[in-house]
Amino acid sequence: MITAISGPLADYAAQHLKLEIEGGVATLTLNRPERKNPLTFESYSEMAAILRAAVHDDAVKAFVVTGAGGNFCSGGDVHEIIGPLLDRDTKGLMQFTAMTGELVKAMRACPQPIIAAIDGIAAGAGAIIAMASDIRIGTARAKTAFLFNRVGLAGCDMGACAILPRIIGQGRASELLYLGRSLGGEEALAWGFFNAIHDPDALQAAAAKLAREIAEGPNFAHAMTKRMLQMEWAMSMDQAIEAEAVAQALCMTTQDFRRAYDAFVAKQRPVFKGD
Amino acid sequence: MITAISGPLADYAAQHLKLEIEGGVATLTLNRPERKNPLTFESYSEMAAILRAAVHDDAVKAFVVTGAGGNFCSGGDVHEIIGPLLDRDTKGLMQFTAMTGELVKAMRACPQPIIAAIDGIAAGAGAIIAMASDIRIGTARAKTAFLFNRVGLAGCDMGACAILPRIIGQGRASELLYLGRSLGGEEALAWGFFNAIHDPDALQAAAAKLAREIAEGPNFAHAMTKRMLQMEWAMSMDQAIEAEAVAQALCMTTQDFRRAYDAFVAKQRPVFKGD
Amino acid sequence: MITAISGPLADYAAQHLKLEIEGGVATLTLNRPERKNPLTFESYSEMAAILRAAVHDDAVKAFVVTGAGGNFCSGGDVHEIIGPLLDRDTKGLMQFTAMTGELVKAMRACPQPIIAAIDGIAAGAGAIIAMASDIRIGTARAKTAFLFNRVGLAGCDMGACAILPRIIGQGRASELLYLGRSLGGEEALAWGFFNAIHDPDALQAAAAKLAREIAEGPNFAHAMTKRMLQMEWAMSMDQAIEAEAVAQALCMTTQDFRRAYDAFVAKQRPVFKGD
Repeated sequence: MITAISGPLADYAAQHLKLEIEGGVATLTLNRPERKNPLTFESYSEMAAILRAAVHDDAVKAFVVTGAGGNFCSGGDVHEIIGPLLDRDTKGLMQFTAMTGELVKAMRACPQPIIAAIDGIAAGAGAIIAMASDIRIGTARAKTAFLFNRVGLAGCDMGACAILPRIIGQGRASELLYLGRSLGGEEALAWGFFNAIHDPDALQAAAAKLAREIAEGPNFAHAMTKRMLQMEWAMSMDQAIEAEAVAQALCMTTQDFRRAYDAFVAKQRPVFKGD
Repeated sequence: MITAISGPLADYAAQHLKLEIEGGVATLTLNRPERKNPLTFESYSEMAAILRAAVHDDAVKAFVVTGAGGNFCSGGDVHEIIGPLLDRDTKGLMQFTAMTGELVKAMRACPQPIIAAIDGIAAGAGAIIAMASDIRIGTARAKTAFLFNRVGLAGCDMGACAILPRIIGQGRASELLYLGRSLGGEEALAWGFFNAIHDPDALQAAAAKLAREIAEGPNFAHAMTKRMLQMEWAMSMDQAIEAEAVAQALCMTTQDFRRAYDAFVAKQRPVFKGD
Repeated sequence: MITAISGPLADYAAQHLKLEIEGGVATLTLNRPERKNPLTFESYSEMAAILRAAVHDDAVKAFVVTGAGGNFCSGGDVHEIIGPLLDRDTKGLMQFTAMTGELVKAMRACPQPIIAAIDGIAAGAGAIIAMASDIRIGTARAKTAFLFNRVGLAGCDMGACAILPRIIGQGRASELLYLGRSLGGEEALAWGFFNAIHDPDALQAAAAKLAREIAEGPNFAHAMTKRMLQMEWAMSMDQAIEAEAVAQALCMTTQDFRRAYDAFVAKQRPVFKGD
């Protein structure tokens, strides 16, 4: 099992998924297309380790998460995860669910915004990875299914009962979690689960373009936006306003704030450097 | 007044609304169609007592709440509730609002998912009962009205200022609560207040089908989904992830989790038993 | 700088924006149309002072906030706000962000519902003022842009990371805050950011009509609705239900509750007086 990655991600050779870094954008591709990219104990662990390493990696400014071969992710592998779980004792089960929860925490704690690009199947933990991303783009044929009830489990997996209602509302989230039905791409767009849909052929380019746009933005400020979207989840409104006053004052001390002003005065486009 | 129901609900003869149980689905019908099914002190109290009794009734696996005669519920009866309230002292008013609040708490605390089937008028407390259900299906001609302002009261009734924004968003909820206007069926669908709309003739069958599908699911897990949707309401995201890790590990010790795996391996449909 | 306004708002001569009061509706117009109504230190301060004075002004029952000349508000003025901020020290920056946060707090704390009428540009702090209003109506050509990232800053400005996700959902809010792109009027309507859209020529009349309808409602109850929409933001659902039981019992002691009942019995339209 991968426990920690030291050094820059550019030097890391991923084993259980594909990791490519270009122009500040790190693309994580779940890459077992013959099985629709299921998760295994190892890929869960490696993905979380990469995201945790990204906290200290200034060269990575945005993530894209996607799947190979026309599907996003079929979730925890039936033979490699569900079967073995049936043989575990209480402590072993808890270790598994804590480990999967750590992946979502790592997605939310890394300073880089994460864009999920979803084509085909996004099921179970695959739907969760989509949900836990910052922005989701998909295709009309994408099928997102929080199908935990179909395998005898509860919808409360990896934060779904807290996060999904915030994205699509409590009523629609309840339906998906109790019924486990597939959410189609057009419906996902109408509900705000997807931010946009694209043709399957154009999806990866659209995700890369979006990630590049974010990567070229003021990264210190983006990280603060992500941190506050997370921190203010359960604050009172007044607490949130106070927290943002401090956070934004801090951002006003960065050079990127001055760069934007100087560019505006010079009638140019600002070039941000993230400091 | 009904204070508690002992024994199984199948043996209980409801007096102020209709209660039918079939195949694990309990259908509660507000049943004074000549007045569009208003609530009275007695029907409030009996409905809450039924839901509280359901906590201990394994034979009931899902609820349908609906109204007789083409309407859902016209709310607190003007003559039987509003008139008498005007004669109450402070303590008596507080007893009433606490009692109505207890109904919503009972709806959220019972382990069975609740499906509201809404045709015609759902006004005041009727709109609240729809809102407090887990899933809502309706008709195009349904009119849901949080019309408390029209009777000189505030929109903060029975949890509406907390629950309605989570379903349809803060802006739309504010509009409905300040203006008291009717939300039409198509609009309710577009806003995610209704999960689906059906022809009036097909509504009850659709609700029954949905409830049966849920009743045949993994009921221990469904109850956990409902509990966590409730518990995580005001948790931080990390707290929610941790709470779900524990809850899902518990669900992994149930036989239903094994049944789903065995069925998958045998290429069969799982038969869940709720244990 | 304006620190406090004493006496009724009807007697106050606003200097940095336009204030008109008619029939219980106070209309605040950002009024530098040649620059698309930017905010200055003075207009921030005066607007907050007016809203704080409104807490004690029974003659004002609803607010409309709008902009002159076909635009809502272009945000903090580049030359009058952003330039000077670059020369401030840490303490000075914190004073600015605390001051802007106080405007949102004042908008949420005043008992009068606030209707924003948005045509043309609503950018930066202009988008925030729209967001912090209770109800938003706009035009198809309106462009709302949370463009803080474009000026090198974070999306967490004046409560946006807490408030915007509650209005349009976490995914759509994340997109707007990371990208700073304009939200068009039709899209704002579809997402629930706008409650309605109107022709530019009809917008001000529509806002006035809505405000008048609210002003003629039960104002004590409206203020309670607003207070609870705010207070219940981060409460558990049970806490919210309990808080509403107390709040609504209080509203049942008002004369407006009796007036509505008397009017109903007399088959008349109630005339509310706010007590």
